Amino acid sequence: MSIRLLRSSSHHQCYRPRYQAFSTTTRWRWHTSELDGEKMKSLKVHRDRLMKDIHHTAQWGTGERWGKASAETGMSRLALSDADKSARDWFVKTTEELGCKTTVDAMGNIFAVRPGQKDGPPIYAGSHLDTQPTGGRYDGVLGVTAAIEMLRVLNDNWVETEYPVGVVNWTNEEGARFPISMVSSGVWSGSIPLDHAHNLKEVGSGTATMKSELERIGYLGSTPASHEAIPMAAHFELHIEQGPILESERHKIGIVQGVQAYRWFTIHVKGQDCHTGTTPFNVRSDALLTAAKMILQSHRAATKHGALASTGILTLKPGSTNTVPGDVKFSLDIRAAADKTLDALEQDLRDDFALIASASDVAGLNTHGTPGLPCTVSWSTDSISSATTFHSDCISCVEAAAKVIFGDETEKLTKTMTSGAGHDSVYTSKVCPTSMIFVPSKGGVSHNPREFTSEEDCTLGAQVLVGSVVECDRRRVRG
Amino acid sequence: MSIRLLRSSSHHQCYRPRYQAFSTTTRWRWHTSELDGEKMKSLKVHRDRLMKDIHHTAQWGTGERWGKASAETGMSRLALSDADKSARDWFVKTTEELGCKTTVDAMGNIFAVRPGQKDGPPIYAGSHLDTQPTGGRYDGVLGVTAAIEMLRVLNDNWVETEYPVGVVNWTNEEGARFPISMVSSGVWSGSIPLDHAHNLKEVGSGTATMKSELERIGYLGSTPASHEAIPMAAHFELHIEQGPILESERHKIGIVQGVQAYRWFTIHVKGQDCHTGTTPFNVRSDALLTAAKMILQSHRAATKHGALASTGILTLKPGSTNTVPGDVKFSLDIRAAADKTLDALEQDLRDDFALIASASDVAGLNTHGTPGLPCTVSWSTDSISSATTFHSDCISCVEAAAKVIFGDETEKLTKTMTSGAGHDSVYTSKVCPTSMIFVPSKGGVSHNPREFTSEEDCTLGAQVLVGSVVECDRRRVRG
Ligand SMILES: [Zn+2]
Ligand SMILES: [Zn+2]
Repeated sequence: MSIRLLRSSSHHQCYRPRYQAFSTTTRWRWHTSELDGEKMKSLKVHRDRLMKDIHHTAQWGTGERWGKASAETGMSRLALSDADKSARDWFVKTTEELGCKTTVDAMGNIFAVRPGQKDGPPIYAGSHLDTQPTGGRYDGVLGVTAAIEMLRVLNDNWVETEYPVGVVNWTNEEGARFPISMVSSGVWSGSIPLDHAHNLKEVGSGTATMKSELERIGYLGSTPASHEAIPMAAHFELHIEQGPILESERHKIGIVQGVQAYRWFTIHVKGQDCHTGTTPFNVRSDALLTAAKMILQSHRAATKHGALASTGILTLKPGSTNTVPGDVKFSLDIRAAADKTLDALEQDLRDDFALIASASDVAGLNTHGTPGLPCTVSWSTDSISSATTFHSDCISCVEAAAKVIFGDETEKLTKTMTSGAGHDSVYTSKVCPTSMIFVPSKGGVSHNPREFTSEEDCTLGAQVLVGSVVECDRRRVRG
Repeated sequence: MSIRLLRSSSHHQCYRPRYQAFSTTTRWRWHTSELDGEKMKSLKVHRDRLMKDIHHTAQWGTGERWGKASAETGMSRLALSDADKSARDWFVKTTEELGCKTTVDAMGNIFAVRPGQKDGPPIYAGSHLDTQPTGGRYDGVLGVTAAIEMLRVLNDNWVETEYPVGVVNWTNEEGARFPISMVSSGVWSGSIPLDHAHNLKEVGSGTATMKSELERIGYLGSTPASHEAIPMAAHFELHIEQGPILESERHKIGIVQGVQAYRWFTIHVKGQDCHTGTTPFNVRSDALLTAAKMILQSHRAATKHGALASTGILTLKPGSTNTVPGDVKFSLDIRAAADKTLDALEQDLRDDFALIASASDVAGLNTHGTPGLPCTVSWSTDSISSATTFHSDCISCVEAAAKVIFGDETEKLTKTMTSGAGHDSVYTSKVCPTSMIFVPSKGGVSHNPREFTSEEDCTLGAQVLVGSVVECDRRRVRG
């Protein structure tokens, strides 16, 4: 495909960057259908501009300091907090200044759309601006800021896309404040009922709901949170890997094929409170000792199935040094690449936990201990995400974009992989072609203030994102 | 010893119950030195009066309902709360109406003294009015209300003791709100510095200290909290067993010889937060999985030593379903009848926990699991209580009192035992002759709303308490 300079005519409804002065009647413009490999290469992400956005937005919800440099703090920007509102306001202002029209839906998802040559559902890039309570600067933020950088690169290069392109910020991706992750892309995709999401209570002792907080910060939009009201032609998400694989294998870009399945449960163990000094082991129903055995057993069973099992929350009652707890609740997060692996692991754990609660032995857990009285155990399901397979067309666009950058080194510097974490792309993938791009996480660390991705890798990731969206747009007219 | 009726003379400084009208110049009165077994038997505890006090005071800090009857709720009267203030106000008013002079010390301990024939340090009966957050109606309360019933029984029977007798209410025995148990008898006995106790912060997120709360509720007394300022000739404490032994062996009264040693620690495990979905087991430093192994191992090691180990508090950070916790703190409470047993258990656990933290195997805990990265573990000591041996003179008074009630059945209905729980008597025992009386706890349940001791057993316990104090007073003049 050849490159042509197009002369714009004033009657043509076109995109005009607000910050650049240009003739009102004529200007040069590229159409994406006319970009070849060489011209694609010239659509350069500006590293400093991207990094500035990442660190500038970190002023809202700055977290724990871990080093002396100004950027060496983590993030604590819980969804729909005051800090999140500030980051959202910045997002709206910035994308509008770059020529976008923004829409807020009933879940507070923000969609910023840059017009194209023709009308039609936009291709979106984006991620989330909320963070874990002790999170880092890159999770989610990189995907949003890189998408905004994409707008700047298109403007810089006077590119008019064939169809609109957009930037999306999804609400409460982390599930850290309101305990369903990716809940708002979930509603948008039709997978989670709006009322259920609106009524989610914040974790901890507070009484706020998602709806009350959306109202409070002014982000309860009037547009339905629905892929029918706000359609997407495709969804691309750049994200840090949050794991150690790319770094340890010296790859630069992960070309993500899908997302592993996961299931979240709350396990409730009920025993009997008793005094720690006066109650012999043989007459105790110790809910915490029982939970400790279950947590250890979940690790063992996951090992056996080549899966993962983790407990991130544990609460107990009554909570006094000299009272054996009669009531323990803990979260159980199990993950595997295939749904059937997870089926088998879950069944094993349901059997094992029932035995452990009944004070029976499982795999030597009771060896050297004193047999006690039974507890009861119950499971409640908080979240289920089946294994996700991304769309081959989108994956192909990412491959093409990587090839433009890496050339002959593409195979060496990229890796085909499965995402360990859930992302909003899991839900978008249910209703539109989707894929993801990963960049290395230093030490595999994420959900931690020390989460780090080098400037080079952030920039490479953003470059692949821009290339992927442009490639996808080109293919819409090439057929 | 014969029984004599004494005619009181008006010049003699004597005790006058306020609620009974009597001649201002003469009245009949018993001196305790003149009471023999038959007369001792007539010093009758009134069951209904005692039970009324127990249930009446339960209006302040009423806890969880577990049954339909009016008394079928637990207690939640944390030390120095508004509810505790109300119970204290009742204590002061009631004992003063019964003719006592009350003194409040700098720890809020309340001493109510009924004058005797001669001056001198009083013999005290008492316990504590604070409860666990989800406690019952008898722990502590029985000992205080039975001591008040003792005042009534002495008044009813016109008994003037040789020396003063008193009733004591100790502050924050439970250690549930301010995290050192028996802290105020500890200060009184010279074992805990006043400043340290005053500066104790309440458990949880509040900022109150013991001193600020003593001031707030008006119980920061001006008398030093010291056994020198407020001496005791002896200390008797009636208490529920809080364990299953008396009930299961069908004894009515436990004649307590001492208290088992215990040590409280906070164990701090530090690992590394990481994402639950993206971090393979082999690169995790999972602080909660490590803590779970430690809790299980503490149970095993205590079993080996014939001791006890319990965890009643566990907190973790950051606390999100999809983040492996990098920081866990848990309480460890270990107990044994002998100090040297506890030395050995503590040493084993220090060795075991260091190995577990280093990701090494201890007794098969790592079998079937995936080896991970190390965590660190540190111990801080919150409380140490050596094994306590009660005073043989006091124990002998309890035996004598039980004999008056049970006669030939004494051996069958009483049991020589060691207390599993700490009590204020541990500290009083360091500076004055002390012993305790136990009554059965239904099902061994304590520190729970369903804590229960029958009216018959409460009454028997109070009867033994009255007999023990009177016997002790008699022996002070018999030599
Ligand atoms: Zn994310
Ligand atoms: Zn007690």
